[in-house]
Amino acid sequence: MGLYEFSQGRRFLVRVPRGEELVAYIDRLVNEQGIAQGFISGIGAVAEATIGFYDQKTRDYHERELTGGLEIVSLLGNISRREGRCHAHLHVGLADHSGAMYGGHLGRAVVFLTELVVVEFTGRELERVPDEATGLVCWR
Amino acid sequence: MGLYEFSQGRRFLVRVPRGEELVAYIDRLVNEQGIAQGFISGIGAVAEATIGFYDQKTRDYHERELTGGLEIVSLLGNISRREGRCHAHLHVGLADHSGAMYGGHLGRAVVFLTELVVVEFTGRELERVPDEATGLVCWR
Amino acid sequence: MGLYEFSQGRRFLVRVPRGEELVAYIDRLVNEQGIAQGFISGIGAVAEATIGFYDQKTRDYHERELTGGLEIVSLLGNISRREGRCHAHLHVGLADHSGAMYGGHLGRAVVFLTELVVVEFTGRELERVPDEATGLVCWR
Repeated sequence: MGLYEFSQGRRFLVRVPRGEELVAYIDRLVNEQGIAQGFISGIGAVAEATIGFYDQKTRDYHERELTGGLEIVSLLGNISRREGRCHAHLHVGLADHSGAMYGGHLGRAVVFLTELVVVEFTGRELERVPDEATGLVCWR
Repeated sequence: MGLYEFSQGRRFLVRVPRGEELVAYIDRLVNEQGIAQGFISGIGAVAEATIGFYDQKTRDYHERELTGGLEIVSLLGNISRREGRCHAHLHVGLADHSGAMYGGHLGRAVVFLTELVVVEFTGRELERVPDEATGLVCWR
Repeated sequence: MGLYEFSQGRRFLVRVPRGEELVAYIDRLVNEQGIAQGFISGIGAVAEATIGFYDQKTRDYHERELTGGLEIVSLLGNISRREGRCHAHLHVGLADHSGAMYGGHLGRAVVFLTELVVVEFTGRELERVPDEATGLVCWR
């Protein structure tokens, strides 16, 4: 089984300020703090976002841009190593003014207000490497 | 960075009984148990719910009422202090009988069955205060 | 209150390989590892999935099959005991190529790639038993 056990690291609540690009902000956060493995969850709102859908046959991403202000209903992901850096893999569910939801891989988003829960796992490293079965970059 | 580090507190699984109003129940739970900071996640079903969308321009909430029984696909949030009390901020994704999803800020919901995971963070306080950049009440 | 407090157990990141049926895989995982209580979260993609909606009046599940490749936007759930085994209760939000979302109780899914965060809770047992108020099998 692809099962990786860790020790408990630190735990944080994080407020991401208005105007920040969320994916770049989280990348900076995990690398500055040296959070190499862990769990991320978040809620809040964004001004706009780009979500991705990975086509399992053609093996490329389709992106969709959403604008007009959106609630972050669910931000969920994990942290591991990728090309020597700390890397967060994030999926997001967003709602528009009617409550209708859109979701996928989080490509980028401009924050209105975002509140994160970050839990660090330590004690061993977990690295992403290219994976032939999916065309993605996965835990070995 | 708006980064707040905590020590590890208690952890709970919680069953919310049928008929309870979910937001009031969680408010009672965190205040009775003195859970001042932490993470909440949940799944289950509700009889009805009110979800909110915050208009980033006009700075007021639009609410939508949903009825007819809904699955709680994702309940995610955090706990911090607000006006001296323990306060949970919760976003929810709900599905109707067709699987179609609706989401936003959780205003209220009448529980059919809800199962929560609550993880407490301790060691420092985190207080919400009015925030001019968003018109919301945010971690300072 | 239906409040159950636990000690902290182990924590895992898990890669579920392509082609696995996700619900059966998680069932095998928690039983082989003896994870009797805890929290599960996940993201990724599936080739197909069956989601369920519990009709609160007629007390039976309506199922919907989704095909064509779907992103796992949110997988959330908990682990407890059911009929003497370790049992994961999971809800899922899925997105199609357009970003449109569908969600509910996770019945089954064929994995393309799934990454899980599993946090174990220990120190006491929590068992599901039949519940008259809902027709479901709930924590007593």
